[in-house]
This record gives sequence, C-alpha cells and structure tokens, in this order.
Amino acid sequence: MPPFDVPEGDPFGPHNLPYGVFSIPGERERTVGVRLGDHVLDAGAAARALGSPYADLLARPTLNPLLAAGRTAWSDVRRALTAWVTVPAHRETLAPLLRPLSSVTLHLPFEVADYVDFYASENHARNVGRIFRPDAADSLTPNWKHLPIGYHGRAGTVVVSGTDVIRPSGQRRSPADPAPVFGPSVRLDIEAEVGFVVGTPSEPGRPVPLRDWREHVFGLCLLNDWSARDIQAWEYVPLGPFLGKSFATSVAAWITPLDALEDARTAPPERTHPLLPYLDDTDTEPSGYDLRISVAVNGHVVSEPPFSTMYWTAAQQLAHLTVNGASLRTGDLYGSGTVSGPAERERGSLLELTWNGRDPLELPDGKRTFLEDGDVVTLSAWAPGPDGTRVGLGEVTGRVIPA
Amino acid sequence: MPPFDVPEGDPFGPHNLPYGVFSIPGERERTVGVRLGDHVLDAGAAARALGSPYADLLARPTLNPLLAAGRTAWSDVRRALTAWVTVPAHRETLAPLLRPLSSVTLHLPFEVADYVDFYASENHARNVGRIFRPDAADSLTPNWKHLPIGYHGRAGTVVVSGTDVIRPSGQRRSPADPAPVFGPSVRLDIEAEVGFVVGTPSEPGRPVPLRDWREHVFGLCLLNDWSARDIQAWEYVPLGPFLGKSFATSVAAWITPLDALEDARTAPPERTHPLLPYLDDTDTEPSGYDLRISVAVNGHVVSEPPFSTMYWTAAQQLAHLTVNGASLRTGDLYGSGTVSGPAERERGSLLELTWNGRDPLELPDGKRTFLEDGDVVTLSAWAPGPDGTRVGLGEVTGRVIPA
Repeated sequence: MPPFDVPEGDPFGPHNLPYGVFSIPGERERTVGVRLGDHVLDAGAAARALGSPYADLLARPTLNPLLAAGRTAWSDVRRALTAWVTVPAHRETLAPLLRPLSSVTLHLPFEVADYVDFYASENHARNVGRIFRPDAADSLTPNWKHLPIGYHGRAGTVVVSGTDVIRPSGQRRSPADPAPVFGPSVRLDIEAEVGFVVGTPSEPGRPVPLRDWREHVFGLCLLNDWSARDIQAWEYVPLGPFLGKSFATSVAAWITPLDALEDARTAPPERTHPLLPYLDDTDTEPSGYDLRISVAVNGHVVSEPPFSTMYWTAAQQLAHLTVNGASLRTGDLYGSGTVSGPAERERGSLLELTWNGRDPLELPDGKRTFLEDGDVVTLSAWAPGPDGTRVGLGEVTGRVIPA
Repeated sequence: MPPFDVPEGDPFGPHNLPYGVFSIPGERERTVGVRLGDHVLDAGAAARALGSPYADLLARPTLNPLLAAGRTAWSDVRRALTAWVTVPAHRETLAPLLRPLSSVTLHLPFEVADYVDFYASENHARNVGRIFRPDAADSLTPNWKHLPIGYHGRAGTVVVSGTDVIRPSGQRRSPADPAPVFGPSVRLDIEAEVGFVVGTPSEPGRPVPLRDWREHVFGLCLLNDWSARDIQAWEYVPLGPFLGKSFATSVAAWITPLDALEDARTAPPERTHPLLPYLDDTDTEPSGYDLRISVAVNGHVVSEPPFSTMYWTAAQQLAHLTVNGASLRTGDLYGSGTVSGPAERERGSLLELTWNGRDPLELPDGKRTFLEDGDVVTLSAWAPGPDGTRVGLGEVTGRVIPA
C-alpha cells in the first residue's frame, strides 16, 4: 500500500512534508495538500478523519490561514502530520486520502501579499557589474556590502510552477538605435532564486530583529524571476526594474517549512565589511541555507547554483525590509535574488552563463544566448536532511510561449 | 432636514458622490458610504431600503465588489445614487441613513492589490534632475520622453487619510560620511500625487490599449507618497527606491469615480517626442484631468500643483503597465508621480520647494526644509464640474510622529 513506504532516499519522504494546494477536476475543490513521495495527502480531510484540531487550518483553499497561525501552530501541525504518515495505525484511514501527484492539479499555494526581490548574491552582483560597467573600479555599487539591495515586484503576476510564460513585449533601445523600438523581448532570461514566505504579520513601526525572523517566515520555495534584459536595460534608470520583470514570476507548488531544513542551516560567507547593528549577524544562529539548486533548459542542466554562497541571508533581508517601520502581511513573499556561485557552471542566469550573449551555451538542441520560444526552464533543488537524507524542494518549471 | 439640501457650491454636492468605507463605533460595522456634503450616506442600507438590486455591491465592508463589477455597473449604480439623493420622495426613507462625517470612522476604502508609482510630471523630473545631476546636459534621463517611468511600491503600507506616519529609520550616507549611518530620516518629504484605482481586471498577455483605460479604471484619489530622501539616495542604485518609500503611502478616504470628472478632462501637454503606437494618444479622447491640488503643512498652503500639466496620462500609464502582458487585478492602485507645475509655488515636494534644503520655506510656525515631527500634511483638490460647479476630491492628511 504505497506511498507510506516511500522508497529509502526519496527526497520527499516523511522528513520533508512540504505544503501545497491541489484540486482534482470534477471531484475535489482546492484544498491544502502535503507531499509524500509522488503522492499528495489531503491534509484537511486527514485532520478531520483523525479528529485533529488542525482541520480548520488545513481544509482550506489556500495556505494563508496556516501561514497566519504562527510558529507554534506550524510546529504543532508538522508534528501531527509526521505522526499521521509514520504511525502504522493510521494507514487504513489515510490511504484513500493519498492521491498520485499525476492525478491532481497544483495551484498557487498562497495568496501573495507583497512581493520583494533582493540582490543578495555577491557573485551575481559582481558578474552583472562586470558585464554592464566593465570600466568601473569596483564591480559592486558602493552600497552593496552595507545593505541587502531590494525592490518591490508585482505580486499579481506570481504564478505557480507549470504555468506557461508568454514572452513579454516592450521597448528596448540598443546603443545603435536612434530611437527605442517595440517588440517581443529578444533577451528573455532566467533568474534562479529562492523565495521566502511570510506567515506572521508585523505592526507598522516595529522592525523585525534578526533573531526573530523565524517567528515570521514559514518556509521557502524555488522561484524563477523571469527577466527581459532588453526591456529592463532601457527602462531601469532611475527607478529600477519594472516591465522587464513584472510579466511573470514563477514559484514552486510546494512550500518547504523551515522546520524541514534544520540540517541545511549554514553560516553565510565571511562578511568583508562591518555591518550596522540591525544587520550584524555575528552572534546569531546561522540563517544561511545549504540548498543545491539545478537549472535545466529543456531537461539539460546548464547550472548548479549553491545557495550557501549568498552574502545576505533571509534573516538580514527581513530585518532590512522592516527596519524603516514597514509592516509585514501574511503571504508576503521575498526572493533572494539570482543565486550564483563563484564557478562558471554555478551562475543562475543566462546573462551570466553566456556573458550577455557573448559565449552561447551549447545545448543538445542547439546554441542558446537567451531563451527561445518553446524552451522549458526547470529549477530543482535539494538540501541536506537528517541522518544523511536529502530534503527535496518542489521544482519550478515553465515553458516560454510566443508573444 | 439636511443634508439633502447641500449648500449651493458645495464641492461634495450630488454632482460628485465619491465612495468610501465607514463604520460607527459600537453601532455599525464597515460598509460602503457615499459622501454628500458633510454627511455620509450608508449606501448599502439605502439600496436595501429602496429595493435596489445594487445592495449586494454596496452593503460590503470594502469597495472591491463594486470595483470588480465593471463600468456598466459603475454607471448604473451612480445613476441610481444620484436619483436617491435628488428625488424628494426618497428623503424620508434615506434621512436616517445619512450620518454626519464627524460621527463616523473612515477606513481604507479598498483592498490594495498591487501598487505602482509613476514619475509623470516633466517639471518634477526636470527639477529632480537639476538638483541631483546639476552637470548633466539634459535634466531628463534618455528614456523619460519615450515611456512613463514607473516602479512597484508596497501595497501593504498604503494607509487611509488620517493615519499617523511614523518617521522611518534607515541607512543614509552623505558624501562626507566615511560609512553609512543609521537613524531616523532627516529628510522626510511629501509627494503630492493622484492615485488611480483599477476595478476591472485583465488577463495575462492582454495589454490594455489607450482607448480602453476607462473600462478598467474606476476612479481616482489624492495620494501622498511619503519619501525619506536620505534613505532613498543611498539605497536606490541600481534597483530603485525601496525603504525610502515603503514605510507609508497615504490615500484619501474617498474615491472619486471618473464619471464625476467628465468636465475636468483635458488634453495633456503637447508631446515633444514621437511616441510608439501603444502610447500615441494623438487621436484619442483627452485623458488628462484638470485637478487643482493644494499642499498644506500645518494648515498653511505651501504649493498648488496643477495636475493638468502632467506629461503622461493615466491612460498611457495603464497601457504601459500592461504592454508586457502583466495582468491587472481589482484593487490595483497606480500613482501619477509627484505633481509639479512650472512655477515655484506649484511644486509637489519639499525637495523641489526648498531646492533640496537650500531655500527653506517660511511657515507661520518657523522655517522648514523637510518635515518635522508633529507636522500635519494635507493635500486637497478640486476639479471643474458641470455647470460651473466644483468637484471636490477627498483630502489626504497625515501627521508625522517621532521614530
């Protein structure tokens, strides 16, 4: 009777238990599901069947009520779920509530409140600086080592993995153009990122200190912040990226709770500049994560960015985001920024992998500088789990369709 | 029996009828209200009392259902309301449903989906350019005349008029500082703007052409996009404003429907550069608005920015916002950007009014470069209405309180 007996080594075993929202056409409206191997457990129905008090948080069409319930509830629910899927006495009750992943439709797992995107990889920021400002004395802007640079993106165009991405059109102007031209982007790119999902809100005027970030952040997911480099290059001075990013941001269908990633916590890289007290994480618990990301185009792996190399942590990003008194809402999402490691094959964007198109990638189906119509981009990742296991992150995938 | 007989010349007479959301402590939960003079009509209760089919759109704690109903419904509801408040037979029924403004609490009138801020005043953009890049050949960036520059702001910190604004803290670094310093902003500023409220959503990949903007935009309101100039100056390269803006954006409690502003429509300034077809409004109906804004600090008027001088219109902003395929949601809000006219007393920010602090304003209570704790900023405005009337916009006011 699968899938309680998930194969040894499955990255979605009972040590993981990420949350999503699924439906079954014609049979089941949207409701919270928990992934176990290649099955989904109807979590609300399971809670009801077992008389659990968490049914009210789980028998919902979105994760938001669970997100809003706060860290104690998150831990309690996770403990309960772990018991349900591991205690043999529950098998008969729960077996009918486990559905093969292939039979369900997965949805955006939570209602996104505000979406913020950071720029936290030093390797990425230096690569971008070298590409666009080759003559600058320093490839980083003067503020980069003092604060985690971020900006707001479009929450309404965050889509779930599997959603097609329509190639955006817009204005672009290369140095040779006498005036801007309009048309489909010719430099459509990937940004391989990790997104953090806020559960517990905060009050205006009350910054979240570094040590409290886990009280607010429920979990994380892979995120592809699709970027039209040509649109972005023309529009972004002086107020930052807008249409070059706002057409789509893809997130995984599965949110991995931070509690599943205890064994993946790691110290961030050594800080090369002294930090202001609200960002100084010298004496805090490590809030970096050892996530091994893989970026594939049409099934061919082009890069393996290591999240452990990120200079700024999710804790620092949350402390910065709120230090001016800005409040948090349940469902706020913030992206890490493109994850790029120091090696060439660790870069999280085609901009970097092809050095702005100069060095095309050789794929089995031809050369690539930027994405072509029909290309399918898939991000996947795993993290070290307890006892040598791997914790899988839900993949985020999307196909580029013509403008 | 006031207030049906609103005094002649009242800018909130039956020709106006803006929408808001009010409650009466201990008596009435949040519900949609319509302003008439210095009273509020409980619109949902009125609809029920008169057997109107619009009760379902109006007896709600937010404007979102009305916003989502679309232009035909907007016009129908407005026609019905106009009849209710002008036909004498309804007076007896409606009198108990009119409450003095002074007796109600006003709330954020709609749930903000995404918030975008533009930069559409040529005078403002040129002033900013002259202040920060005095040696540049052109005070505008090369893209300015080709597209309405915009960026996403924080929807979760949009607050209703009357909400106190806590002075934000953050990093700043003046040229003389060897390293960034942290503390309350010392350059807290006003940005006098007009916000546009989206009702009808749009599909991904389907841009909204210029001619369709009124199908999507329900109405407008005054908006103060509070800005911490010192935080913004240090953080904004290369990804734009973030914490310098995200602590608070104040909007009026009253949303004026576009239908109330037919007599205020005006052609925008002559275009000095040819525009790409999706932005070319040469042969479209005028989508500029003649709104006469007033900016007061502690009751003292410091500026009167004329909205009619805005180079980019709300129609162009919506066409641009969606041209990359980004979809709209009910409750999306976009700000015009700071409104500044050509004259010194027409500038919509203290940055411009004091020329970045060089020329302090003389107020009755002392000099001002930027805002001090305790200062109350109030934006108000009117527009030409039918038959020589004035259409008042709801004011937006806020007091600065210490960090």
